[in-house]
Parts: sequence; C-alpha cells; structure tokens
Amino acid sequence: MKRARTDKAADSRPRSEARVKVRYAETDQMGMAYYANYLVWFEVGRSQYCNDCGFSYRDMEKETGLFLTVAEARCRYQTPARYEDELIVRTSIAELTRRTVRFSYEIDRADGQPVARGETLHVLINSEGRPSSMPEKYLSLLGRK
Amino acid sequence: MKRARTDKAADSRPRSEARVKVRYAETDQMGMAYYANYLVWFEVGRSQYCNDCGFSYRDMEKETGLFLTVAEARCRYQTPARYEDELIVRTSIAELTRRTVRFSYEIDRADGQPVARGETLHVLINSEGRPSSMPEKYLSLLGRK
Amino acid sequence: MKRARTDKAADSRPRSEARVKVRYAETDQMGMAYYANYLVWFEVGRSQYCNDCGFSYRDMEKETGLFLTVAEARCRYQTPARYEDELIVRTSIAELTRRTVRFSYEIDRADGQPVARGETLHVLINSEGRPSSMPEKYLSLLGRK
Amino acid sequence: MKRARTDKAADSRPRSEARVKVRYAETDQMGMAYYANYLVWFEVGRSQYCNDCGFSYRDMEKETGLFLTVAEARCRYQTPARYEDELIVRTSIAELTRRTVRFSYEIDRADGQPVARGETLHVLINSEGRPSSMPEKYLSLLGRK
Repeated sequence: MKRARTDKAADSRPRSEARVKVRYAETDQMGMAYYANYLVWFEVGRSQYCNDCGFSYRDMEKETGLFLTVAEARCRYQTPARYEDELIVRTSIAELTRRTVRFSYEIDRADGQPVARGETLHVLINSEGRPSSMPEKYLSLLGRK
Repeated sequence: MKRARTDKAADSRPRSEARVKVRYAETDQMGMAYYANYLVWFEVGRSQYCNDCGFSYRDMEKETGLFLTVAEARCRYQTPARYEDELIVRTSIAELTRRTVRFSYEIDRADGQPVARGETLHVLINSEGRPSSMPEKYLSLLGRK
Repeated sequence: MKRARTDKAADSRPRSEARVKVRYAETDQMGMAYYANYLVWFEVGRSQYCNDCGFSYRDMEKETGLFLTVAEARCRYQTPARYEDELIVRTSIAELTRRTVRFSYEIDRADGQPVARGETLHVLINSEGRPSSMPEKYLSLLGRK
Repeated sequence: MKRARTDKAADSRPRSEARVKVRYAETDQMGMAYYANYLVWFEVGRSQYCNDCGFSYRDMEKETGLFLTVAEARCRYQTPARYEDELIVRTSIAELTRRTVRFSYEIDRADGQPVARGETLHVLINSEGRPSSMPEKYLSLLGRK
C-alpha cells in the first residue's frame, strides 16, 4: 500500500489517506467488490490514521492491553468498486472521548468518483471485555493529528 | 447450514432463520469475529429469506438478469461473537417497493444472547447498472412470505 | 452448519463430515467460489473433526496454550463450486505424531460431484511460537476417532 | 499498493514484485495472518505480474471472454505474517503452455525474513468452462516478461 501524508480537509478536520487496489478476491459474481469489503478498507484507513498519528495500533494493543472494539458501523455505497480500481480511503475522527472514538470515512476512486461514505464507532475495552479509559498518551496522539 | 422454518415474529413480520457457526477464519487477533463478517452473515440471512419465499437468489439473477445491489448497510454490535459460537440470523423485510428492498437482521447466539442488529437497503439494477423494476413474480414472492 | 456423524471410510480411516453452503461473499467475478475459500472450508472440516473426537479446538487452545499452526497446504480443484451449492467436507487424519498432524480433505457437492481434494500439515506450537508436544489427552482423542 | 518494477532473479526468470501490508481483517485469534490469506496475496502477485507484462487481467477477461481458473494451489508457510507486517510478493512463471500457466511465488517480509513459498497451476477456460487456448497476444505478453 502506498501511504499518503496527511492533508487538511476542506472542513479543517485532519485526515489520513490510504490507498487500496481492489483484489480479485474482493469481487463477487455481480462483478463488483462485495459489500463487506468496504468495512475492511475502512479498517485500512483507521490503521493508516493511527500510523499518521505516530503510533501503530498493534503497539497500542501490546503496550496497553486495550482494544478498540467496534460498536457500530455504517456504509453508504455510491459507485461500485471493481477489480483493480485504485481507491483512496480518507479517514478522520468525528468524535473523540476518553472511552469512544468515532471515525469517518470517504472512499473515492483515484479519478475522483465517489465510491462510499461511512462511519464506525469504537469503544475501548480491556482484555476482559470491560469498557476502559484511553491512556493520556494515545488520547493526545489521536487528538493531535 | 441447518435451515429453519419461518415463524411469525412478535411484531407479526414474517422472518427467516439461518444458522451459522463462527469459523476460525472469521476471528481476528482480538479473539472475536472480525466486524465485517457480520455483513456476510446478514447475506446468509438474506439468501435464506429468499429460499423461504420459494426462490433462489441465484435463479432470480439468472432468470431476470437483475441484481439486488447494496445501497446502505448498518450494524450495531452488542456481544462479540467468538469461534464456534452458534448464531441465529433472523431476517425480515422492513420495506419493499418495486425498486428497493430494505432487510432487517437480528443475530443472536443460540443461547439467546443478542449479538448484533442491522439493516441493509438494496436497489434493483440491470447488468448495465441501471435501476430497474422488480418483476411481478419476485415482488409477490418476496411480499408473500 | 448441519453436522454429520462419523462414518468409516472405504479405506477404513475415520472421517468427519461437515456441510457448507457456498455464500455470495465467497464467489468472485468469474461466478465461482474464489480459490482461497476452499482452505476456509478445510478448516471447517478440521473443526468438525475435533468436535467428533470429543473436544473443541477452542478449548484445546485455552486449556493447553498450544496452537496447531499450518506448515503446508495444498488443494487440487476439480469442479468449480458455485453460489448456494451444498458441499460436504470429509476430513480425516493422514498422519499423527506428537508434534505434527496431517489432515486430508475431500470436498464433494451434495449430489456427489467431486469439487476438491487437499491436505494440510500442522505443527504444534506454544504461545512463543516454539514447537511443542501434544498432551497425551489430545493425542489420544485425535487418534481414537 | 506500491508497485515495484521487474528485476531479474538470481535464476534469471523474470519476476514481479507486489507489496502488501497485513490487514487486521487478515489476522485470526492465533494473532497471525490466517492461512487462506496467503493465497489472496499470491493473487495480488499474479495481478501485478500481468500488469508488469503490459496488460490487466481484467482486460484479458473482457477482451477474450477467457478465464484463468485455478487447478492446483500449494503453499509452504515459513514465518508467520503478523498485523502491519510489510510483505513483498515475488511472482514468476514456472511453466507456460498454450492452455496452462504455472505461477511461482515467494513472500518475504520487507526485512528479508522468508514468510511463504507457493505455486498455482491455472487452466484457461471459456465462459462455458471448456479448456481453451490462449490467444497469441497474451501468450507472447506473458512469455516476454
């Protein structure tokens, strides 16, 4: 994956950009990308967002023993993505509290055609599944972007 | 998949029941089912709904050349599903027009624990991607359940 | 998944039977099941094999802290599996040592048409990734089938 | 995906390089990439190989109505791939006839650690599933690399 730098969005929220190329595995017999894969691409966007904030989501899991579990996901499909389409996933944080993060996503084809819009709400839990508070370090890393 | 018969729901909407057992492939390193897989299980529920209405979605595609593409999907995650959990996917139609179908889903563990709730909105298109009208036959099959 | 009981195979090796129905998610734009999914179905067969031996692979992981990691996999594709095809996955153990297990698979359509044949070799490791010996209990459970 | 240029391998067979970064979706509860995903990465390698030969596999399907179906796949797993690992997939053609192509793959971590080795055998079929001959154009494009 080619990883792009952050650029200030029109609405001034910081964003990350990740690129994915639609895989054959991701198509279905309709000849388009299967609808669940958009949520996988959202996650690629989230990972990139963390990287751009200066940490790996993997290290956060290891260091803190905490996980960002998904509480809600939604996606609006605009133009079907097809095999070998180059997609840009733009990720921003719509809401950040000590215990929850709401990510917002825009997926466009590299030629600018809008492909999908979506949102995921995450809750921080510990390894026993209990809601937890995000350590100051990561709260500030995520917020600072 | 064990396929269950239809039973009238409390709210009187007809429902289908499909059963899935969480696969190792569907887990992630958090030790739970990865969040995009719930949309796959929704689709297992939709397929079962069509079967219970007396047709295969595969045959509808072949016979009419039409596809039920997804326009929107949303999912609320309640209890994490884990490897080898037995899940029941209950599917009903929340809205049916000549051009759109809105499916509604409830996923519970076999022991009754609620796992997820969701909805998908579908638009009927032809092989060129143009919005189309559902043939009377399938409209009545879907509605009749 | 409908789970079938064990029956002695022609070659006298004990076998398990698991059933899967091909999901829309598993198809690709060729209109067939994508080739990597056969390995997922093999794993459904392995899980069923363990269940038929009287234990859950999940419990073995929890109880022993050991994992059956995959060292080799191979698959020969015979007839393409298609959406809503009912498949039977027959799993047997081709070789069992204290540190390795070789599983053998036959996938057929419910109408008897051969779909795929394959094999996976597994090595037992602990949570640090070191090769380990299978506790007597599980060795005897797997062997006894 | 960052796409790399072709470089002559030690054994003088032309190779393509594709890069993938392991996605959270691709991990399982063992904390490693699930074994079927390596076949998906092989396919990313094949797509890249075609691109490097001057055509898109998508266009070949559209232009000729032919498909490269998979007849055999095998993979030897060396070092487990983990979330966010950067992998290099090196693809070459081990054998090319008018009706079959054998691809060979090497997956290494970006730091050089060998991750997996594999092979896939493909048979050219038409839309009715009959074995077909590869048009001269594509035979020469694939061979020329």
